[in-house]
Amino acid sequence: MIRNLFTLLLALAIGFTTFAQDAYMDAQAQEIEKTYTGGKAYEVKTYTQKFKSDKPKNIIFMIGDGMGVAQVFAGLTANQGKLFIENCRHIGFSKTQSADNYTTDSAAGGTALSCGIKTYNGAIGVDTDTIPVKTILEEADEKGMATGLVSSSAITHATPASFIAHQKNRGMYEEIAADFLKTDIDVFIGGGIEHFSKRADGKNLLVDLEKNGYQVESEMNKIKKVKKGKLVGLTANVHTDRVPERGEMLPVATKTAINILDNNSNGNGFFVMVEGSQIDWGGHANSTIYITEEMLDFDKAVGEAIKFAAKNGETLVVVTADHETGGMAVEGGDMNTGMVKANYTTKGHSAVMVPIFSYGPGAEQFIGIMENTDIHAKIKKLLSDN
Amino acid sequence: MIRNLFTLLLALAIGFTTFAQDAYMDAQAQEIEKTYTGGKAYEVKTYTQKFKSDKPKNIIFMIGDGMGVAQVFAGLTANQGKLFIENCRHIGFSKTQSADNYTTDSAAGGTALSCGIKTYNGAIGVDTDTIPVKTILEEADEKGMATGLVSSSAITHATPASFIAHQKNRGMYEEIAADFLKTDIDVFIGGGIEHFSKRADGKNLLVDLEKNGYQVESEMNKIKKVKKGKLVGLTANVHTDRVPERGEMLPVATKTAINILDNNSNGNGFFVMVEGSQIDWGGHANSTIYITEEMLDFDKAVGEAIKFAAKNGETLVVVTADHETGGMAVEGGDMNTGMVKANYTTKGHSAVMVPIFSYGPGAEQFIGIMENTDIHAKIKKLLSDN
Repeated sequence: MIRNLFTLLLALAIGFTTFAQDAYMDAQAQEIEKTYTGGKAYEVKTYTQKFKSDKPKNIIFMIGDGMGVAQVFAGLTANQGKLFIENCRHIGFSKTQSADNYTTDSAAGGTALSCGIKTYNGAIGVDTDTIPVKTILEEADEKGMATGLVSSSAITHATPASFIAHQKNRGMYEEIAADFLKTDIDVFIGGGIEHFSKRADGKNLLVDLEKNGYQVESEMNKIKKVKKGKLVGLTANVHTDRVPERGEMLPVATKTAINILDNNSNGNGFFVMVEGSQIDWGGHANSTIYITEEMLDFDKAVGEAIKFAAKNGETLVVVTADHETGGMAVEGGDMNTGMVKANYTTKGHSAVMVPIFSYGPGAEQFIGIMENTDIHAKIKKLLSDN
Repeated sequence: MIRNLFTLLLALAIGFTTFAQDAYMDAQAQEIEKTYTGGKAYEVKTYTQKFKSDKPKNIIFMIGDGMGVAQVFAGLTANQGKLFIENCRHIGFSKTQSADNYTTDSAAGGTALSCGIKTYNGAIGVDTDTIPVKTILEEADEKGMATGLVSSSAITHATPASFIAHQKNRGMYEEIAADFLKTDIDVFIGGGIEHFSKRADGKNLLVDLEKNGYQVESEMNKIKKVKKGKLVGLTANVHTDRVPERGEMLPVATKTAINILDNNSNGNGFFVMVEGSQIDWGGHANSTIYITEEMLDFDKAVGEAIKFAAKNGETLVVVTADHETGGMAVEGGDMNTGMVKANYTTKGHSAVMVPIFSYGPGAEQFIGIMENTDIHAKIKKLLSDN
């Protein structure tokens, strides 16, 4: 009896100690995640503000998912005071509220930018009555422009999906994948292999895509060598890895897509949407390390876009976000070492207006405080002027 | 013995209950403070973007102390989707880091804006060696422009002080008050009576100010009737009350100061700095109610400035902040009722870049991401072009 009681007490004591230790370790790990300790800064070039034309022929639309002002500033500090985004001298703010929620999700946020409508959270390219609305990519395609999508998540995920698919729910990945075959998009690069080839309906859409003339690749080494024609680059079964594992996938994919689209455009211009997908996931994790790595990676992709736009002279680059994630506040840092310390109010999205940074002919249109749907309207207007 | 033990236990129990109740009430009160429940929205006019001149003759420089993007957005939501600030279509960001700290205080932040130098936290108009540096207000005064300061704190507090005083420490209120007599400033309105008249040195600077030709008033009803000449308006012993008590003091003082300066300028133009001082204090209190009331009050003052600038056609209005306070995140709200719910990461300042909103001739200069000291350089350049 006494021995049993002793054993019970010992077990309880050990259990409690383990629990306390785990909780302590978790808290420690979360604290560690809140500080990005800095690293080697990359070189940032300053590009011309003079352009060949007053109006853009090509549009490079870049979305940092979950990228509020604090996320940009974390990146700015981490890269020791300079970002490619700073070449975008024209700045505005986007109000991100969705049709049914003061705080949007990425689906309604993406659809506002792609279709110019306020819809319900979860909607992919459909209005509040679940009726499909033509996206800016589809309109560009109809105008004979070359079109593309690039993301560092599954290409079927909410943001890229909003530019090409029409589904009542963002979780319908296989239906979204099938929608990629309904347009004449030139190139798309991201994750999501299994939504195309391991489907409930048994179809292998990658075979269909090849029949439709696409080169289908899964390795960045092969993807980056493609110069023209139609390309599907699917680099992960679902989502691509984080930056430390995936490396320069997003900037390289951005450069590759721009190059292919420029070659395919036949003088009719191109539209491409590039998403830095995982800034959002770093926000959901309340991890300054994750956010900062993804922010810098996205900025390098912005750098590739601006480099092309500066040389091309007829390309508008618009960089914005669908919403902010994490309620991130930058509380400490060092511009010399790149250290950034942040704190967070939520594991979800916040509702604050997000920045718009623009570069190139037409950039002066994207200033002031506007609705997210106004960004779509302005891009559409610029394209219709062509 | 047992009775004593019982008494002790009872006392402990009562003590604990009281403590727990107090803690519960405090937590409840703090939660209540985090939600602004909405109110009657004020009308916001949209003003012309066409101006008589390409270059400004008058500068109205407005600082929302502690006003980050979230604070502006809280105000935008609270006023049901519209603010006077939205007339400022040119937007930039200001990097607020001080000479000795990644996170600035209002003194170094104010001095960066007033003198164009990075200095240490606590410094009022002096550099890192505590050497006085001429302020933009002093330079405007030397050029023969009319000059003024308006704040909703003591006029001797860090931000307004940075524009007229030179002291090694922001807490030297009586020395700061004495510095007001060393310039030919036309008008200043705010709190701080006792720093002028109840001083350790026994002097009454209000008598000296009257000797120097100033009309000295302490009631807004009298202050607002002054049309020209030199005016000292001190409306509180130290700081002015919060908005519910002080009413429209800041917008009325702003309108009054602008009117006097315009009348005093003799065609040489004027410079005035207007501070919405207590947005910062709402941030320190982590009170969405306090922040939102002060933000809307500041926006009404911005409205007075823009109304004048639109009519005058030669006036530049620049609205910015010295830093963000509270790590504020807008987590809920309703654009129809004006309800705003926010959360906070700190009781102090955060380090994030703050917005710059500009209206009028020269506004197009204040775009892009810049150092807070660049704002000073750009204003100085615009004044030297006159």
